[in-house]
Amino acid sequence: MTQKIIKIGIVGGTGYTGVELLRLLAQHPNAKLTAITSRSEAGMPVADMFPNLRSWVDLKFVEPAAALLGQCDLVFFATPNGIAMKDTPALLAAGVRVIDVAADFRIKDIALWEQWYNMKHACPDLVAEAVYGLPEVNREKIAGARIVANPGCYPTSVQLGFLPLVEAGVVDIEHLIADAKSGVSGAGRKAEVHTLLAEASDNFKAYGVPGHRHLPEIAQGLTQIAGKAVKLIFTPHLTPMIRGIHATLYARLTKDIDLQALYEKRYANEAFVDVLPPGSHPDTRSVRGANLCRIAVHRPQDGDTAVVLSVIDNLVKGAAGQAVQNMNIMFGLPETTGLRQVALLP
Amino acid sequence: MTQKIIKIGIVGGTGYTGVELLRLLAQHPNAKLTAITSRSEAGMPVADMFPNLRSWVDLKFVEPAAALLGQCDLVFFATPNGIAMKDTPALLAAGVRVIDVAADFRIKDIALWEQWYNMKHACPDLVAEAVYGLPEVNREKIAGARIVANPGCYPTSVQLGFLPLVEAGVVDIEHLIADAKSGVSGAGRKAEVHTLLAEASDNFKAYGVPGHRHLPEIAQGLTQIAGKAVKLIFTPHLTPMIRGIHATLYARLTKDIDLQALYEKRYANEAFVDVLPPGSHPDTRSVRGANLCRIAVHRPQDGDTAVVLSVIDNLVKGAAGQAVQNMNIMFGLPETTGLRQVALLP
Amino acid sequence: MTQKIIKIGIVGGTGYTGVELLRLLAQHPNAKLTAITSRSEAGMPVADMFPNLRSWVDLKFVEPAAALLGQCDLVFFATPNGIAMKDTPALLAAGVRVIDVAADFRIKDIALWEQWYNMKHACPDLVAEAVYGLPEVNREKIAGARIVANPGCYPTSVQLGFLPLVEAGVVDIEHLIADAKSGVSGAGRKAEVHTLLAEASDNFKAYGVPGHRHLPEIAQGLTQIAGKAVKLIFTPHLTPMIRGIHATLYARLTKDIDLQALYEKRYANEAFVDVLPPGSHPDTRSVRGANLCRIAVHRPQDGDTAVVLSVIDNLVKGAAGQAVQNMNIMFGLPETTGLRQVALLP
Amino acid sequence: MTQKIIKIGIVGGTGYTGVELLRLLAQHPNAKLTAITSRSEAGMPVADMFPNLRSWVDLKFVEPAAALLGQCDLVFFATPNGIAMKDTPALLAAGVRVIDVAADFRIKDIALWEQWYNMKHACPDLVAEAVYGLPEVNREKIAGARIVANPGCYPTSVQLGFLPLVEAGVVDIEHLIADAKSGVSGAGRKAEVHTLLAEASDNFKAYGVPGHRHLPEIAQGLTQIAGKAVKLIFTPHLTPMIRGIHATLYARLTKDIDLQALYEKRYANEAFVDVLPPGSHPDTRSVRGANLCRIAVHRPQDGDTAVVLSVIDNLVKGAAGQAVQNMNIMFGLPETTGLRQVALLP
Repeated sequence: MTQKIIKIGIVGGTGYTGVELLRLLAQHPNAKLTAITSRSEAGMPVADMFPNLRSWVDLKFVEPAAALLGQCDLVFFATPNGIAMKDTPALLAAGVRVIDVAADFRIKDIALWEQWYNMKHACPDLVAEAVYGLPEVNREKIAGARIVANPGCYPTSVQLGFLPLVEAGVVDIEHLIADAKSGVSGAGRKAEVHTLLAEASDNFKAYGVPGHRHLPEIAQGLTQIAGKAVKLIFTPHLTPMIRGIHATLYARLTKDIDLQALYEKRYANEAFVDVLPPGSHPDTRSVRGANLCRIAVHRPQDGDTAVVLSVIDNLVKGAAGQAVQNMNIMFGLPETTGLRQVALLP
Repeated sequence: MTQKIIKIGIVGGTGYTGVELLRLLAQHPNAKLTAITSRSEAGMPVADMFPNLRSWVDLKFVEPAAALLGQCDLVFFATPNGIAMKDTPALLAAGVRVIDVAADFRIKDIALWEQWYNMKHACPDLVAEAVYGLPEVNREKIAGARIVANPGCYPTSVQLGFLPLVEAGVVDIEHLIADAKSGVSGAGRKAEVHTLLAEASDNFKAYGVPGHRHLPEIAQGLTQIAGKAVKLIFTPHLTPMIRGIHATLYARLTKDIDLQALYEKRYANEAFVDVLPPGSHPDTRSVRGANLCRIAVHRPQDGDTAVVLSVIDNLVKGAAGQAVQNMNIMFGLPETTGLRQVALLP
Repeated sequence: MTQKIIKIGIVGGTGYTGVELLRLLAQHPNAKLTAITSRSEAGMPVADMFPNLRSWVDLKFVEPAAALLGQCDLVFFATPNGIAMKDTPALLAAGVRVIDVAADFRIKDIALWEQWYNMKHACPDLVAEAVYGLPEVNREKIAGARIVANPGCYPTSVQLGFLPLVEAGVVDIEHLIADAKSGVSGAGRKAEVHTLLAEASDNFKAYGVPGHRHLPEIAQGLTQIAGKAVKLIFTPHLTPMIRGIHATLYARLTKDIDLQALYEKRYANEAFVDVLPPGSHPDTRSVRGANLCRIAVHRPQDGDTAVVLSVIDNLVKGAAGQAVQNMNIMFGLPETTGLRQVALLP
Repeated sequence: MTQKIIKIGIVGGTGYTGVELLRLLAQHPNAKLTAITSRSEAGMPVADMFPNLRSWVDLKFVEPAAALLGQCDLVFFATPNGIAMKDTPALLAAGVRVIDVAADFRIKDIALWEQWYNMKHACPDLVAEAVYGLPEVNREKIAGARIVANPGCYPTSVQLGFLPLVEAGVVDIEHLIADAKSGVSGAGRKAEVHTLLAEASDNFKAYGVPGHRHLPEIAQGLTQIAGKAVKLIFTPHLTPMIRGIHATLYARLTKDIDLQALYEKRYANEAFVDVLPPGSHPDTRSVRGANLCRIAVHRPQDGDTAVVLSVIDNLVKGAAGQAVQNMNIMFGLPETTGLRQVALLP
């Protein structure tokens, strides 16, 4: 039997999503990396920038024009926002499928997207076609998609955490609260002062409390599930660690329900969502390097508030790992192919 | 003019609250350290355990019996819970005043205290007399107190954060949410696995979601202010940093009000509470080593929820610094005496 | 063709070497975990202690007596020093092979061992038989060994770093200097104050400068290679990170030689030693989670001193990974079986 | 009695040396801050950039031209290299004294400076006049200096560590080794990728092994002390912490000598050098925030090698604190004025 081989191009391989895609794809039995582009680093061996890939990835970064992306089966965009929307039409025309790990295709309401991302959208029509790549919600649509909009890191942890409550219709969906904490790699591999070790280490702060781009993405996803408008307060925080998101979620219960059973049943068949036993507190390191969301659900003092703890590795289930999961679905592979790493602890 | 000198004893000087008291008192112009007790380390020079105190503190740890605490003006208990309640009656009888930095005198409801702290209280009558040492609320009572119950670290940051809202009666006090994050020094200088660097670093987790000892303390304090029962969800988290608490507080507004003005007015005369300009996000390092609570208040999307960000150094305004502030009040000194350090940043 | 299956027992599975062995063996195609012992945690599911192993390891910790270790093909000791030497004779008698990841069989000179480890050796005769498990030196002997003494973490990084120089006879072997820095997991998963995050984070210190147990182990290994007595200064330091050792090695050159060529040639056929290009500085994260030693060699200012930079993950190439590498050799498997993980970066 | 007031200007106040100078000077009884310049941030209140200075520093950053630096008694340069040398001549002409915390006046050999700093020197004649501001060596000259070249951070820790050995003439000064480890703040408050938390945290690496700018500075200082050419290997490393330098120094003894007595005697009258008892290992946190160098000296296995452990806070004794110490000397104040902070531990 011949093994299926997927020819893959990566646009924008110099960020953390890029190196994480490379780490996963280098070990994926069906993936054949054919090109990695970078305007700024063209000519540099990938393994010179990311020494963990020495002996694993022999490619050099190439100019986008030289990458012959049109000959790929699949192109990942691991770029800043605003790139994928420009390049995708030509790729689709060449028969190439696209997974955008940035935000260009996530928000269906173009005006809303343009407001939060502060640019004009280049291909609004394709936004309508794109499938939001949260497999636990949209698995079937992902399988046939030409364009998958890979979810943001916060939105993945928050949506998976709220999902059973919202689907079951047992909470006040106009007053959800998501208090989320992220490791610093979520800010990307960009030269900025506020994420220097000397600034961000031994420190903790909130940011974007008045508004964060992931808010409309989360609201859209939960609204689709609820069938009516969901409102939430979303408070992101910067935590002095490299990887990991911990979302602490609060929802007012409108019905009495066995929360533990609800969550266990909803995720019983999901390979990448792990509902912990009652009374648990997941730690982010328990998913470090793994494509996994671990969830615990509480009801403190038997009151009317559900408290959900949801953790992911922001670079894996929150970005590159979920992108590979989507690739597996799109190409008819078992969903766990190439994604069975044990988390690195300690 | 003769300068007032306070003869001070410290019971239990080997923990983080102890060393922080020593750091502050060693530089305090009116403090004369006369004894520091430790059963396990009696005979060891204090500066051998805490080398930052070399040339500042010449004392050795002594057995409690040898400490002649009865000759002090003031004794701080920087002990595990359950010690101060045993020793305090004799000290009071000797005319010594007491500041308990542990929890023995914090909860007025003895049955509730015994339930959360899992021991029998040794002197319930003195609990009634003790004054809860949050100067921004109880300054006058502290001045005349024989026993001050120094607040817990989380309770300080949470109460100062909610205080203006609860005093003003503008929020739903039955559904407050306090999502709090603490540095690891909050767990004390105890040999335990879960706070090892290899366990707690590059990691984030919640703990005590079903119930934490600081919950009844916070509820009691806010209830006293509100004049009726306050209920809150309190979710503590462990953050990979040494010092600092960041409390993110959520309250549903029941009246329209200028939040910024409310906070600025309430704390206008407080030396150790700093209300930041609108739109701010305080970081914990901005109070590292300083006796200060910095607060920012938000109302995201102009909705009906107030989001308050409150940061302290858990060892200073959350413990030793607040204890020295209480000492200053008790002994008629200017409240800022010995407490004017600039926070260490970066 | 039938795949070879190795029945494996682990004695002492609750430390960092234990969990790391479990992580690697859970993904090893030829390993069948049959028992993990722990006196203190008998009955607890392994995955309750190490949540990264949920769905990977279904075993519970068992009492050593109940472990039926005599039915295994191989037993790893991931115990404190002094355990393996007591249990090994009976296992050998039962035909079981042993890899001791602790120090019981590392030092051939029994008196020297007893002096540094401060206990009486239980089976001096077996020490003579045991093979020191540094595959890059002793591969052939390891293949046939009944007992493999897995090297210490520092000794692995230091010996692999000095090896080419000492073999080639081009340095003054009486004045070697090894300035080594380790992450805190090297101290083990033990409740101790000095490795608490609040003590060890944002801090750096040397320890054991007058003498450290790894000194005689390194000296013995290099002496065997040199054929005459090697003397070195060994200075270990504690670094605020979880995993990783960085050894900075200094040797006075006695002959002019092309250092880069020497190193590249020596390690050309080694799968787990990577000599970096001239001018490189390996970082410890480039081997995080991987069974790999990366080395760079310098000659500053073209002087008479060679400076070698050698990095490993102390829990992988410095402990569990090297143990699995030895297992592969002992059981005739390709040496890289189950050890082909890409290092986790960032 | 009138207290002496020093009118002070700071050029380049937006870096870590700048904020640290501000922290120290804000609490200094004789310092009057009159201007802080920044081209990029002119108009911004200093406390907006550095919130720890809220209520302490009311100044705004101003354009250099608007700073009226000519009216100051003293100007500190906390700038990148190459600025002070341009502005100093005019300031001297106006009767202003200068402390350059950058490197423009450190190296007496102009050609050597130009080679390492890769620029043309603007005022070679003033280099000859400038005094190297290591008070433990040059106290008398500093008192009368118009220009003080404040030492680099590594050079301070390394020179103070080697000083007694080199002065006493008891070591081989052609083969000194300085293996030094620095916190990340040493790289400055600059937007760069390699010092991001996600890059530098949980990681350790050497850098600049072929050559580092502090090498000629150290060699010059030790050569002056020895009276003949000193050669050393200098290996800097990046450590995942904010503040602190740990220098581990190796020197071959040429004479038998009581090392402990030598060090204690040499530094007996130095307020800012603390020689620890025999057998000690100083940790960097024991000087965090304090203007202090702590030193321990060892002779492992009673061999012929001295191992010296020297720690400083790179921003205090390694930069701003030493600059204030130099200011005190220059203006006839007690050397410890404004510099008596207890180190922050934990």
